Amino acid sequence: MKISELGGETALINLIRDKYGTTGEGRLALGIGDDAALISFGDKFLAVTADLLIENTHFRMDINDPYLLGWKSAAVNISDIAAMGSKPTYSFVSIGLPDIDAVIVESIYEGMRDANAKYGSVIAGGDTVASQAGIVINVTQLGEVEPELAARRSGAKPGDAILVTNTIGDSRAGLELLLIFGLEESNRVNRFVVERHLKPEPRVNEACAAVETGKVHSMMDLSDGLASDLGKLCEASKVGARIIEDALPVSKDLHIAAARLDKDPAALAVGGGEDYELLLTCDPNDILCITKAIVNTGSSAKVIGEITEERRVVLVSSNNEEKPMGGTWEHF
Amino acid sequence: MKISELGGETALINLIRDKYGTTGEGRLALGIGDDAALISFGDKFLAVTADLLIENTHFRMDINDPYLLGWKSAAVNISDIAAMGSKPTYSFVSIGLPDIDAVIVESIYEGMRDANAKYGSVIAGGDTVASQAGIVINVTQLGEVEPELAARRSGAKPGDAILVTNTIGDSRAGLELLLIFGLEESNRVNRFVVERHLKPEPRVNEACAAVETGKVHSMMDLSDGLASDLGKLCEASKVGARIIEDALPVSKDLHIAAARLDKDPAALAVGGGEDYELLLTCDPNDILCITKAIVNTGSSAKVIGEITEERRVVLVSSNNEEKPMGGTWEHF
Repeated sequence: MKISELGGETALINLIRDKYGTTGEGRLALGIGDDAALISFGDKFLAVTADLLIENTHFRMDINDPYLLGWKSAAVNISDIAAMGSKPTYSFVSIGLPDIDAVIVESIYEGMRDANAKYGSVIAGGDTVASQAGIVINVTQLGEVEPELAARRSGAKPGDAILVTNTIGDSRAGLELLLIFGLEESNRVNRFVVERHLKPEPRVNEACAAVETGKVHSMMDLSDGLASDLGKLCEASKVGARIIEDALPVSKDLHIAAARLDKDPAALAVGGGEDYELLLTCDPNDILCITKAIVNTGSSAKVIGEITEERRVVLVSSNNEEKPMGGTWEHF
Repeated sequence: MKISELGGETALINLIRDKYGTTGEGRLALGIGDDAALISFGDKFLAVTADLLIENTHFRMDINDPYLLGWKSAAVNISDIAAMGSKPTYSFVSIGLPDIDAVIVESIYEGMRDANAKYGSVIAGGDTVASQAGIVINVTQLGEVEPELAARRSGAKPGDAILVTNTIGDSRAGLELLLIFGLEESNRVNRFVVERHLKPEPRVNEACAAVETGKVHSMMDLSDGLASDLGKLCEASKVGARIIEDALPVSKDLHIAAARLDKDPAALAVGGGEDYELLLTCDPNDILCITKAIVNTGSSAKVIGEITEERRVVLVSSNNEEKPMGGTWEHF
């Protein structure tokens, strides 16, 4: 049975976790199934995450800038570490390279180094190999967190408020502009959404500030889009969710880009992907406390709905209609 | 300037280390340039290593068994952890997959799980993605070691004895047989060397026993062949070496395979690769102590030469001729 027939990426990950890996035992506080694994080490948790990017599957060099490719490769892993409430520390970069100009390789590493430096991490090792299959990049990012502050996907409780940081949907709009109009014209339409796609900023300070309140029940980063990621958080927490469409934080830039794309901004915000914003839940009484902590880092946070006991994820539209919020980002 | 013109893999790694990474500072006791990085964590060192394998560059599925591919992907990383005197703990597997039969994927993971289990490690996370570039596997392996026991490449001193564990050259002979005769016929010629190539056994117990004597000056694993790897150890330690050809530990199986390949067994032992045996140095007075410790684990260890002040690596042949021991395993 092919992977696609088995049920794609999600089914395969579940199979691997159940038969060949572990969800956590002994010093492994958290194994396969969250943004990062957590390992008890001394009096701290070591957080570990990895992302594999393959040329022509996950990126194209003809529409990509090597520096930004490096930046994003590092940033998406740092975002996973942040999602656990952890501080990024060390990055291990495995890179497969055709015999290309070394200047391109240097630009990729410059981007990775700068993203690491901005968020307090450093490239500490990895592997450099030849590749006959285009550029391949795997980043394994380490971080650390006090055990009592570590955030997981699995802690959401019925009645919890659901918050997201800043705005969502921008990155997807940026991607769609780029694919249709190319870099120059897309930047003319709206530079902000293009930058949001090409140079994501992981919310490290926001996540750390949020968990330091001690009031976050569950947290993850938005990488596959709100619909898909909220579904994962609800599954991990064995709960459901009600999202209010009118409450979705949508930038004015997304409206501009969506108009040019002839798309619904809310659809881009819900179905999008690669936002690298935080999705978190807390007791409604703690909304103000957590929002304040996040605002102090220079970002915003907004309540978009609530966690429900009933295990389905619904979107409530302006005219009060409820519809299931579907959509998985399926790679196979 | 293309990577190959820059000087290939070694030149590129040096460039990355110097401009974009670090050899170690602060809590990073050891950065880019050894078998693994060492990070101070609580009262221990966390060891981290990574290896990236790309289909049709590093392995071919037509002459490979998925289980053995998985085993070897895990084993080579575990060997790097062992080379630091560290015990393997957790493994993070990033895998890129075309839409192939899930049974193949399961076999790969079975191999990885079994190699992990045999050496005390477990798969704790990673990334699973689609790939349009064949199968891509990156394993990041963690381990840990008491700081005072950690072995490095850089500790060799003039006058040190140079030891290797078990026998070398077998894996290379196995590979050459496989490439010429295929699996069935190669197994008829000599099953031992074929197995040595397809299913390497990392020397975890041997390495831990050796460092626990407190007498190892420098250590690494033999992955690129004695000539290449000893060169790296000498460079890191700013020394040279004299290797006695007649002292090289060569199995009777290597003699059988070499005869069929019409090759010199000593050349295979020196130039080979993928031995995953240990190369270590110590004060000549401590040879017996370290050898005993290794023998107690069921392996053997043999002195093959000595570290010299003069910074060149020479091979002394049976008729007492000295020749430079060249040969780098250059991937670009």
